[in-house]
Amino acid sequence: MERLSLELRPQTGILEERRLRNKRTHGKCFTSFNCSLFSQWEAKASYQIATPSSGNVDSSNFLRVEPCKINGSNSAMPNWNIAKSNYNSILDSFEDEYGGIVINADRLPRDPNTFACALPVSLSYWKRIGKKGVWLKLPLELSDLVPVAVKKGFKYHHAEEAYVMLTYWLPEGPCMLPANASHQVGVGGFVLNDQNQVLVVQEKYCDSAFSGAWKLPTGFIQESEEIFSGAVREVQEETGIDTEFVEVIAFRHAHHLAFEKSDLFFICMLRPLSQEIKIDEMEIQAAKWMPFSEFVEQPLIQDDSMFKKIMEICIQRLRKNYCGLTAHPVISKFDGRWSSLYYNVGINSQDSNCHAS
Amino acid sequence: MERLSLELRPQTGILEERRLRNKRTHGKCFTSFNCSLFSQWEAKASYQIATPSSGNVDSSNFLRVEPCKINGSNSAMPNWNIAKSNYNSILDSFEDEYGGIVINADRLPRDPNTFACALPVSLSYWKRIGKKGVWLKLPLELSDLVPVAVKKGFKYHHAEEAYVMLTYWLPEGPCMLPANASHQVGVGGFVLNDQNQVLVVQEKYCDSAFSGAWKLPTGFIQESEEIFSGAVREVQEETGIDTEFVEVIAFRHAHHLAFEKSDLFFICMLRPLSQEIKIDEMEIQAAKWMPFSEFVEQPLIQDDSMFKKIMEICIQRLRKNYCGLTAHPVISKFDGRWSSLYYNVGINSQDSNCHAS
Repeated sequence: MERLSLELRPQTGILEERRLRNKRTHGKCFTSFNCSLFSQWEAKASYQIATPSSGNVDSSNFLRVEPCKINGSNSAMPNWNIAKSNYNSILDSFEDEYGGIVINADRLPRDPNTFACALPVSLSYWKRIGKKGVWLKLPLELSDLVPVAVKKGFKYHHAEEAYVMLTYWLPEGPCMLPANASHQVGVGGFVLNDQNQVLVVQEKYCDSAFSGAWKLPTGFIQESEEIFSGAVREVQEETGIDTEFVEVIAFRHAHHLAFEKSDLFFICMLRPLSQEIKIDEMEIQAAKWMPFSEFVEQPLIQDDSMFKKIMEICIQRLRKNYCGLTAHPVISKFDGRWSSLYYNVGINSQDSNCHAS
Repeated sequence: MERLSLELRPQTGILEERRLRNKRTHGKCFTSFNCSLFSQWEAKASYQIATPSSGNVDSSNFLRVEPCKINGSNSAMPNWNIAKSNYNSILDSFEDEYGGIVINADRLPRDPNTFACALPVSLSYWKRIGKKGVWLKLPLELSDLVPVAVKKGFKYHHAEEAYVMLTYWLPEGPCMLPANASHQVGVGGFVLNDQNQVLVVQEKYCDSAFSGAWKLPTGFIQESEEIFSGAVREVQEETGIDTEFVEVIAFRHAHHLAFEKSDLFFICMLRPLSQEIKIDEMEIQAAKWMPFSEFVEQPLIQDDSMFKKIMEICIQRLRKNYCGLTAHPVISKFDGRWSSLYYNVGINSQDSNCHAS
């Protein structure tokens, strides 16, 4: 009982409760408290226990977390019996910069019943103190908690291989939470050698309409990969040819592609650094150096307004009648990190690609 | 028993089983068969029942689906007892163009136990017939099935508000399934009026380092929105100013931003069509027309290599020493849909922005 009286104080303020919570993280927690933050409401309930007048309190009973119904009332608990049946802890969380709550995934109860009890109490509490969006990141190993959260009104936000993120919007009015990632980013490599031959491939898996057609090597950039290095990598993987990035020639924006997401596709001019082709047997049927004129004359190009326009641009670029975009590393105080700024070559420079030399 | 002998044939081929399944979809299904495709393995098991030597078969027992363990063996079932304990139906599915399986979300069993039984049987079957990736799309209302799928080895792929997509890679070797969406796409509007004033805002929610700074209106493009119309919309929402898109001036590619995703940010030059400012009270603290020179002289711009470079480019563009990218609608046979191709203005044209007029 000494331990109980230390931890549960009447009318304890939030900051003081946080301090108590931290104390409890060093192997001193009771199972059902689970190192969680108490609400003021709960502190009031516990006050009833700490006074001698509250009678015979069984600490193991008190600590047991039961599936419970919470009426959302903010009033003090009139007696211990009510406190016991309604008692639960608020899920451990921290606040984001937009007035939102991020539930601490490392301290979630692993038992679905405990979670089912703590979640509505926590939501009521966060709503009462004026919080807005609630973020719940559930790793694969806590997938048992997914249906519990959904039944309490959470919706999916996004997922990666090892977790699913769910959200709950507390206030009345429209949800203002930021959207999920919306785009995939692809790259295509336009590689011309000094014999005026373009590097082309036939893919193993493609729409039957394109079966047998020769096309530029293309692919998706990987997680956190640059456009300029992704294009070089894709060409190397598919054809074995080493290249260096020259410019982004143009880009295409399309919608409702894989998983109904949008797609940005960057056509990159690359300079070849090797000649010997070695294909990726998994993805590529064949690759070769093809005379540029023969490539452009293919029905795949001539009968397609998009491919035809892209080839027109490439021709203008080769004639130095066109500017592409080069990549320039920049760092910004905005987020304090390096990023790549793509803009036209030739600015403040005499060797602009915009003008015929 | 007549019904049983019709539906369960020895060594029934896959195509014939499909036909039977379809027959059963017209209100003639047994509950546990659930209109699903049978594997050859199951057909063999049922053969034991159809012969008189298999003894006393209780059809209600036979039809009951039980949580079960499947050893993955392809051998014929030696007797009805084994068949009964191992029996289950294959989940309804269709094939994608890459040798993958897409489980039919509309015909999933709603009971987690039934699903827990059907899933491993189905995976064994799909592996045996040489399938590769398995896609399982679980809508919010079937969230009870999420932990079942995870326990059978599924991982998350992506999620939208109303569903989570899970995947399972069947073959030995590296997973070849396409990645989740990787990028968010933002836009910023550079709007200059004929008094050489730029349209600027102060945001309500921003890093304290930028508190009080005037910046260009920015935002994320919405689902399936164009870059050119997204920039116009964001400027209109934040400031009330109507504009028309002129060019993409440059773009920035950054990584590890929200949810560790990458970010493409397109700086768009827009032409103002109105003058009267009316701010979005939810997001914006203030907006105004600010003399361009005063805007550029702000420490936010001058002390930041990225913002400073972007403003240099805008100045060059205003002096017509720079090419931006305009949006051109194209349709391609590649996917048969309209999309936007962004490339430099002035190609094949006399009124290029690349050259001082």
